[in-house]
Amino acid sequence: MGSAIDVKATFRDIYHRLKAELLDDPAFDFTDESRQWIDRMLDYNVPGGKLNRGLSVIDSYKLLKAGVEVTEDEIFLGCALGWCIEWLQAYFLVLDDIMDNSHTRRGQLCWFRVPKVGLIAVNDGIILRNHIPRILKQHFKGKPYYVDLLDLFNEVEFQTASGQMLDLITTHEGEKDLSKYTLPVYRRIVQYKTAYYSFYLPVACALLMSGENLDNFVDVKNILVDMGTYFQVQDDFLDCFGDPEFIGKIGTDIEDYKCSWLVVQALERADESQKKLLSENYGKADSKCVAKVKALYKDLNLEGVFADYESKSYEKLISSIEAQPSKAVQDVLKSFLHKIYKRQK
Amino acid sequence: MGSAIDVKATFRDIYHRLKAELLDDPAFDFTDESRQWIDRMLDYNVPGGKLNRGLSVIDSYKLLKAGVEVTEDEIFLGCALGWCIEWLQAYFLVLDDIMDNSHTRRGQLCWFRVPKVGLIAVNDGIILRNHIPRILKQHFKGKPYYVDLLDLFNEVEFQTASGQMLDLITTHEGEKDLSKYTLPVYRRIVQYKTAYYSFYLPVACALLMSGENLDNFVDVKNILVDMGTYFQVQDDFLDCFGDPEFIGKIGTDIEDYKCSWLVVQALERADESQKKLLSENYGKADSKCVAKVKALYKDLNLEGVFADYESKSYEKLISSIEAQPSKAVQDVLKSFLHKIYKRQK
Ligand SMILES: [Mg+2]
Ligand SMILES: [Mg+2]
Ligand SMILES: [Mg+2]
Ligand SMILES: [Mg+2]
Ligand SMILES: [Mg+2]
Ligand SMILES: [Mg+2]
Repeated sequence: MGSAIDVKATFRDIYHRLKAELLDDPAFDFTDESRQWIDRMLDYNVPGGKLNRGLSVIDSYKLLKAGVEVTEDEIFLGCALGWCIEWLQAYFLVLDDIMDNSHTRRGQLCWFRVPKVGLIAVNDGIILRNHIPRILKQHFKGKPYYVDLLDLFNEVEFQTASGQMLDLITTHEGEKDLSKYTLPVYRRIVQYKTAYYSFYLPVACALLMSGENLDNFVDVKNILVDMGTYFQVQDDFLDCFGDPEFIGKIGTDIEDYKCSWLVVQALERADESQKKLLSENYGKADSKCVAKVKALYKDLNLEGVFADYESKSYEKLISSIEAQPSKAVQDVLKSFLHKIYKRQK
Repeated sequence: MGSAIDVKATFRDIYHRLKAELLDDPAFDFTDESRQWIDRMLDYNVPGGKLNRGLSVIDSYKLLKAGVEVTEDEIFLGCALGWCIEWLQAYFLVLDDIMDNSHTRRGQLCWFRVPKVGLIAVNDGIILRNHIPRILKQHFKGKPYYVDLLDLFNEVEFQTASGQMLDLITTHEGEKDLSKYTLPVYRRIVQYKTAYYSFYLPVACALLMSGENLDNFVDVKNILVDMGTYFQVQDDFLDCFGDPEFIGKIGTDIEDYKCSWLVVQALERADESQKKLLSENYGKADSKCVAKVKALYKDLNLEGVFADYESKSYEKLISSIEAQPSKAVQDVLKSFLHKIYKRQK
């Protein structure tokens, strides 16, 4: 059966196969100790997320095939590429948590906080990153699109690291200064740090597997990057206004002085006294300060601003999608959009 | 003129060209602030070393051409690949200094200790790494060996990161235990952490530029890896017995509890009381402890052991080199060997 549950089970099985191959890579002469280290490090960091990015490669590939039966081999390859994206994400998260001095991730301690790990986690992040070309070489070397896959992963990683830099130097550097938090700054950070790898990369992988030339899909890239931006705006909205029970975590963007869509919108709408309130209360761990910021968000009707943004984004995305010449490509894009539109978590 | 000074000047010029291209990369929409950040980060971390690795690509390429004139274009490409190796080195050093909590590097503060940098240096390391495929794509995309270059850099990076892991989990993890410091452990760390990228990678780059298939050069790889191991043994020897004036730094391997060739040799030769002396004094910042360890090294005649190792390694390498069918390849290997044989710094 091609049910969603089945796909997820297949996807999980393939993780174990890929891990076994990596732990037996002839390019390195493992000791027992180092093999066990990597084994544990992978299990701790790679498979524990929602797997949406990873699963969307094979989902997209099936839609691109538009009804033509997908072979077992193709399913394996689509899942392997999906896991490469999950590995990429794990790499970024392990290092991001170190840089942000975070405490927990996916309901467990951040990897660098696990006893005996510490800053070895920096190198573990590097190892995660290095596993991607090992997987690609093992399973895609010889395919006509092998070099395009390498270029794609390299370019998207570069964009993500550049977005991360922008985030770090804008929001961490020096004194707290809310005047840096503007909409163009926000959009640029989100586009590079999140949208390319989370939205464009899975579809680009599926397109390459389908034999397409990515140069012909610049519009598709732009649509997916816009969708990724919309997704991050939702994420920021839900951090403050979502139901913690439902999301599975309590948002701390206000305490963390994040360059969130909400604070950017608030700053655009605030008068001088409201700006003063923000600069006095944003980025403080004190729950009274957080409450004042949230009250201001309500006063400025950011819930209404968000609802408006959400419906306008949806309309715009749908009309861009429907301008696409290929029905199969439209289906891929709509599938992404409908998975996230009006999401509550 | 093809003089060594000229080559170094050309090589340095090309750094500025590559940097300018990276700061104008259309894959990322730089802000002024982020462009300046990268500019400064590159100047601080990339060109300040001895540049031996980088220069050896074009040196090797010229020897492989065996007298045939090398074009300006080929010189540029050889230098660009050399800089990719220097970028790779910079990436590893920036992150290694964070993991080792080091203070200085190449006569200046470690990058993460520079004010306002801190752990942003983790992402800067990642950016350095990401610059390599940007340079390769810009200048080698379309060459018949482009995909081989990508595979080569990926494989060597994987091996280096794996060697780093071995080093980290062997020499940093938990309680100090000298019994872990054995010759096979030492050799494996050095082979992966240093030899592949420092010795094999430059020659492999030159071979690819010459149109060769690296599968036919497994012996060359092994010789270079052995040479890299010999080089690291020298490095460890000079750390203790070299002239600080001449080397330009004061060694701290004993204080730092390093898995140095000297301590490994000492442990192989020590009786029970000498082992006790080592375990009580190795890895302590106290200059009296360091002096006791050095005195033991003298008692065990490690200078003689090293001189013996050095001449035996040289003989073995020369005979492996002379078994190589290609005279040009022999010349490349001998050039490397003669640059390092009996070096004092
Ligand atoms: Mg974070
Ligand atoms: Mg962060
Ligand atoms: Mg969030
Ligand atoms: Mg170090
Ligand atoms: Mg180290
Ligand atoms: Mg040393």
